[in-house]
This record gives sequence, structure tokens and C-alpha cells, in this order.
Amino acid sequence: MKIEYGMALWEGIPCLQVSQKRLEEFTPKLWKAQEWLEDLCNKGEVGFMDLPFQDPAYIVELGEKVRDRSQHFVLIGIGGSSLGAETLFHALKGPRHNDHPHRDGPTFHVLDNVDPVKTAEILSSIDPGKTCFCVVSKSGSTAESMANFLVSLELVEKTVGRDKAREQIIFITDPEKGSLRELAREEGYRALEVPPNVGGRFSVLSAVGLFPAAVLGLDVKALLAGAARALEACKTRDPETNPAWVIAGLHYLHNTLEGRSISVMMAYHERLATFTDWYRQLWAESLGKEGKGQTPVKAVGTVDQHSQIQLYNDGPKDKIITFLQVERFARDVRIPPLYQDRPALSYLGGHTLGELLNSELVGTASALAKKGVPSLVVTLPRVDEEVMGKLFMVYEMATALSGYLYGINPFDQPGVEEGKRLTYGLMGREGFQEKGREAREIWEKRRGARVSL
Amino acid sequence: MKIEYGMALWEGIPCLQVSQKRLEEFTPKLWKAQEWLEDLCNKGEVGFMDLPFQDPAYIVELGEKVRDRSQHFVLIGIGGSSLGAETLFHALKGPRHNDHPHRDGPTFHVLDNVDPVKTAEILSSIDPGKTCFCVVSKSGSTAESMANFLVSLELVEKTVGRDKAREQIIFITDPEKGSLRELAREEGYRALEVPPNVGGRFSVLSAVGLFPAAVLGLDVKALLAGAARALEACKTRDPETNPAWVIAGLHYLHNTLEGRSISVMMAYHERLATFTDWYRQLWAESLGKEGKGQTPVKAVGTVDQHSQIQLYNDGPKDKIITFLQVERFARDVRIPPLYQDRPALSYLGGHTLGELLNSELVGTASALAKKGVPSLVVTLPRVDEEVMGKLFMVYEMATALSGYLYGINPFDQPGVEEGKRLTYGLMGREGFQEKGREAREIWEKRRGARVSL
Repeated sequence: MKIEYGMALWEGIPCLQVSQKRLEEFTPKLWKAQEWLEDLCNKGEVGFMDLPFQDPAYIVELGEKVRDRSQHFVLIGIGGSSLGAETLFHALKGPRHNDHPHRDGPTFHVLDNVDPVKTAEILSSIDPGKTCFCVVSKSGSTAESMANFLVSLELVEKTVGRDKAREQIIFITDPEKGSLRELAREEGYRALEVPPNVGGRFSVLSAVGLFPAAVLGLDVKALLAGAARALEACKTRDPETNPAWVIAGLHYLHNTLEGRSISVMMAYHERLATFTDWYRQLWAESLGKEGKGQTPVKAVGTVDQHSQIQLYNDGPKDKIITFLQVERFARDVRIPPLYQDRPALSYLGGHTLGELLNSELVGTASALAKKGVPSLVVTLPRVDEEVMGKLFMVYEMATALSGYLYGINPFDQPGVEEGKRLTYGLMGREGFQEKGREAREIWEKRRGARVSL
Repeated sequence: MKIEYGMALWEGIPCLQVSQKRLEEFTPKLWKAQEWLEDLCNKGEVGFMDLPFQDPAYIVELGEKVRDRSQHFVLIGIGGSSLGAETLFHALKGPRHNDHPHRDGPTFHVLDNVDPVKTAEILSSIDPGKTCFCVVSKSGSTAESMANFLVSLELVEKTVGRDKAREQIIFITDPEKGSLRELAREEGYRALEVPPNVGGRFSVLSAVGLFPAAVLGLDVKALLAGAARALEACKTRDPETNPAWVIAGLHYLHNTLEGRSISVMMAYHERLATFTDWYRQLWAESLGKEGKGQTPVKAVGTVDQHSQIQLYNDGPKDKIITFLQVERFARDVRIPPLYQDRPALSYLGGHTLGELLNSELVGTASALAKKGVPSLVVTLPRVDEEVMGKLFMVYEMATALSGYLYGINPFDQPGVEEGKRLTYGLMGREGFQEKGREAREIWEKRRGARVSL
């Protein structure tokens, strides 16, 4: 894995203010950021950096058991409780896994929303008696996941009875607190742990991501080894060898010096599109605080060349782009040399789709550079567990270090609480009546102006 | 369908500068924008406003034939050539259509990228002899679609022979020009037309969207009727009854007066998530010009509450949000009243998932309003062809009118050409050698700084 960023610097694009020198001048901040983070880690307040060194034996063993015994696997979680596993699933199994005629292991489904049509369709596509349901919620009170849990529980109980239902449900939750932990204690559900000092969006390398990975038959050890290797690099104090520093420093400088308030991550491989969703959560929820932060935007090449590139090239100069490039695809497809007499078709024959895809990346990045739009290129030799482990850790470390640069706490999310309280009120949860009234009053204001058709 | 925007005005959120009065003062611009657009339409330069009044009989007839005779349908297109049909597919058939045991009509696939893994997986999941391939490219030279066309053509020819292959392939392209039209003339491929004065992103109501819709068995007439009804509303000169004006005016004022450079569209129904992709292209490619425009962002409720809402609430005040709300879902799911002794679960029982979903929308919008983030609420009574027709036309009209407000041409896309030329050069297309050299030279600059791990 490498990160090339000559096109995000003045040396490569002379209209930029961010230069190698500026990044170097900024380096003492790196040391302070590292110290701050190590200190949080040593005090036990922040735990994601410990995860690569855990022993995953129990998680893997349970995962393999479920893999052997289940025809279907339904992950119930939302945000940080599902995005890591979904990223691994899409990157390493792909969206057509469930239809694959020679699939080994269970089908994989995610109930990450309370969209009734989605939940109904997923639950009616599985055999409830042959399904493992994994409910992930650190707090044990996430409304969406609790609702999908109750719906699923009723379905399984109706199919196999109360006791057997409990064998088919596994929780991943706080080791001590919350209603899922209580239920595990009192009703005999099995439960894995989310370490208390690991927040949802930093939890992919805990049981939250590893257990589903094991159910899918992925190489959990390689994932952790990749993360460990990346962590080592991200702990160096040399900006020239520290990938997290490069990402954090460049994004911070482009944001604060040049007003680049949008960070686009554009994946030139559809298998990595869900990684950009994972990144979106990490970057937005960690850094969007106190009026600061950068809006992360998901893009997919080549598709979004025909959707967003007009804007990126000629619109406001408010973006920094990260291209994800893959060197070797799991499969490639040769374009046949048909219609060699037609110039709009003939040049394609003999190339592969992979070559075309990566040439489009080069063409797009070069056109953007000509317009003064800065970009980083993250190149992955291939997509496998080790590389995914590296990617996760590099971006987690980049996000943590960015928190220090912005002077905010990247590990909390105070701005999501009020919406939850207002929703509790609307749903009639005890103790939140006043919030329900408040929400209805504010919501009424939307009617102040309207148009119907 | 209604648009309520009291929470995007000073009257609803007193820290905003945009008020009902300001919107009214701005109204004379509406008349001018309408005149400008009507003039373009009368001169025949802009054609999307004529589409609701076409006779779709031939398109529908051909679509129904394909529907009857094919087991699989593969749409080859990218950007405006595929997003409209994908939007209809996801909204009205859903992502699980292909797996449905009682599905009527062919499976539906889209080759909208040159990702080799995706193309290989889709093509190996179908029976090439029982598949209709529909190649959509107005110019007949889009590299991605031409590549997928050649790959598919070879596959079908190998399976059923050269002559029969031609019966299974249908083009949708310019009526006169381009290599697909030439091939249709010279080799007997069937071809439908994209009107020359309708650009890709405004083409969903032409054969580009209608033919796939007919293959899917959708009600094409209802789609056009909805669009016609919306067009009528969008032509009124009264801002209080013109939905396109409300959308265009509010977004323009929030952008120019308050620096809201990001337009989030957050759909509270997963079936509408692809509509937000369609909107993203329309808004970005039409308006992102001359340093102007607004970056459209896709979001899905409730999922992105656990990903983006922290940033929207507490990050930079650079966003205006559009919520898509659905009143009646095709299915709903009751949450059973289990665990009534546990406060984190008990309040959910007895509600439906649809109620929870829409309460979360209200809670989220209210929390944002408390933080001074403006929002519009677009409420759809249900998701069907008529409503989708309205949605498409309202947003096309809003985009066209916005073009006038920004003083740019919303119907061209000059900023995507250079990337194409550089890619042609890299792929060795004749006449583009110099561009290939240039791309390689610029791309080399990325190496100016790098870190490996």
C-alpha cells in the first residue's frame, strides 16, 4: 500500500498554497499529536490502538461454528455497529455473494435501518430456523437496532420456540452495561464484547467487525496483522514514513489554508465503495464539531466521472480528492477487438476493463490537476484481509491525529443526542414526554410555507 | 406530493437570513427564468419539457416484447444513460427483485462501470442466449459503455451466433449521429432514439428511462402523466404554487446569502436512495460551472443519522438539507411488545417500523432546526410511477431555473471533456497521442511525495 501525494502539493500543482515545506514546518505538531494520543491510550481512555494485538481465538471459533451451522446470517446494527462488517463483506465477498451458486457459508444480510420494506424483504428471504441473528449495539439501546431485534426475535420464536430462539441470537455489546448485557445475563443469550474504550466507528477490529468476518470465513489474523503493521508506521515521528500524518496533515492544511471544506474519497473499484461509507462516518462524526470539520463525500469511479466531475473540475474550489486505486483485480475482462474499422470502438480492443478503469483514473486525476484540484492517490496492491486491515488502521489513526489538529475530541459525538431524545419523545418513551412536545412544535414550523401538487 | 419549507426560512428559524419576504422580492427573477427557458424550448434547443407529451406506444410495445421473451435484461449505460432507469428500478422494484421467487419479467442488471469484477460477475450470472442487452449512449462513443458493449457482444455471439446476437441487442442513441446509429443502420441492430435536444441527465422520460421501465412492467403512462402534472405546476409564475421555483430559489439564496455550498438530500426510504444519486448528477453536472454550483450529497435516513448528523448539527454551517418523506410504505412491520419491563425496549412495542422511521425524521429535522440548519421536507404520499414522474420533472425544472439564477448554462458539461481526452490518449486512441503524453507527465507528479507501508 502506498500513498502518493505530489498532486496535493505546490510542487506538483503550483497554484496550491500547501507545499512540502509547509507540511514539514507543521511536523512538530505531529509529535504533540502522537504524545496526546499515546497518553489517552496509556490511560486506557482510547482503546482502538490495542485491538490489533488481541487474541481473536474465541471470536473466530464462535464465528466458525455459526458459519458451519447457519444457512443465513443477519447482522442487526447501524453506523459503527454495521459499517465495518459491511465494508469487509463488500470488499472481500461482494454484493453477489448471496446469489453465488457455489457459495460456502451462510448468506449475509444487514438490518441497518428501520425501513419497513427493507426489513420485511430481508426477513422473508431467509429461513428463520436456520439463521443466526447478531445484534450489535454497544449501549444496548439504539432504537433502530432494538426495533429490528424485537421483530427478528418474534419471528424466530414463532418458528423454533423460545429456548431455541435464544441459541440463534448473539449479542455484541458492552461487557457490563446496557439492556443487551442484562438480557444476556438473565436470559442466556450469548454475547461478545465491545471494549468500553472503543467507540462504534473505531470498532471494526473488535468483535464488532471480527465476528461477522469469521462467519464469512475471512482471515481474521491477516486483518489484524495488516492493522498492526499499519499502526507501527502510523506511530513513527517521521512525516515521510507516516501515512496517517500525511492524510491528516494534508487534509487539515487544505481545509484551513485554502478553505477546502469537502473531502471526496473516490474509489476506482466498486468493491471498495462501502469502505468510502465507512470513511464517511469516521471522518464526519469524529471531526464535525464546534463548527469545524470537513464534509466527506463518497464517489465511485468511473461512474461519478459522469456525474460529479464537471462540478469537481469547474465548480467551487472547495475539495480535496482521495483516489483509491487497485493494482491487481481478483478478475479481469479482456475487451475483444471487434469493429476495428470504427474509431469510437477500435482503440478499446485488446485492452482489459481493468486497464481502462485505471486509465480513467489517471485521465481524471490529471484533468483535475490541470484545474488546480489537489488529490492523493492511495494504491492498494490487491484487495485482501491484510490490505483492508492496513486501510482501516491508517484512516483511524489519521482521524485521531486530525482531532488533535482541530483541537476537538475525535472520540465523542455529542451532536447526535438531541435528535435521539426528540425521537424518544415522539415514540412515547417514558421520561421524554417534554421532548416529544418540543419536537412536534418545531416540526409544525415546516408548515409555515408549502407548495402542493 | 408537497414541499414544506417553513424550516428553511427566517420565519421558522430566526437565525437564517433567507425569509419569505426575501424569496418574494426575488420573484421577478422567476418570470425572467421562465421566459428564458420557454424561449430555449420554443427554439427547440431544450427538449426535456416536451417529453411528457410524447406517444410512448412504440417504446412500450418493444419493452413488453422484450419482457415476454427475455429471462434477463442488461442495461449498458453510465451517468445519465443509466441513472434514471436505475432510480425507477430501485424505487418501484427494489434491490431484491432479481432474487424474488415470484418475480415476473426478466432479472435486471446494470453495467454502469468498467470494474472488471462487477462486469464479470454480472455476465456470469446470466444466460447470454436468453438476455436482452440495451446499450444506451447518446453520442455512441462513451468509452465505458462501448467497452461493456464489446464484451457483451462477443459473449452473445459465442453463445447464439452473429445473427441471433443482433436480435438480442437494442441501442438507445442519437437519431442521426454516432457509431451506435451507424451500426444500427449498417448491421441491423434495433435502435430507439434519444432526442438530440435532450441531454443525458434530463433524459429519464425519453426512451432512455421509458424502455427499461416498460421491460420492468412499469406503468409508463402514469410516469408521463405525473411529469405532465408537475410541469404544469412548475410553469406557473406564482411562487406559492411553483415547486421548482421554491427549490431553486431557496437553494440559490441559501448558497449566495449564507454560503451554504452543500445540498444534502436525505431519503427516509431506501427505495429512494437511488433517486438521490440521480439528483446528485443533475445538480452537480448542471450547475457546477464557472466556479459556481453547490455540491450535492446523498444521505439515507436513519442510517446516516449514525454517520453524518454529528457533522450536520455541529460542523460548519454550510448545508441545506432536503428530507424525502414517504407517507405510506408498500409494506409495514409491527414491532412486537416484548420485554415490556425494559425501558430501552418497551416504548417500541406496538409501533410499526414505518412509524419509527418517520419519527426519526421528525426528531432529526427538529434537532437540526434547533441548531439553525435549514431544511425542506418533500413528502410523497406513496412511491409509484405517477409520483416518480412528478419528482423527476420538479427537480429537472428546479435545476433548469437554477441555471438561469447562477447565470450559467445548465445543459452543457464542458468540464468532463478533458478527462475523456486524456483517457483516450492513455488508451491509444488515434489522434490523441499528445494527450496521452500529457496525462502521463501530469500523473508522474503524484510521485513527488509518497509514503509506503
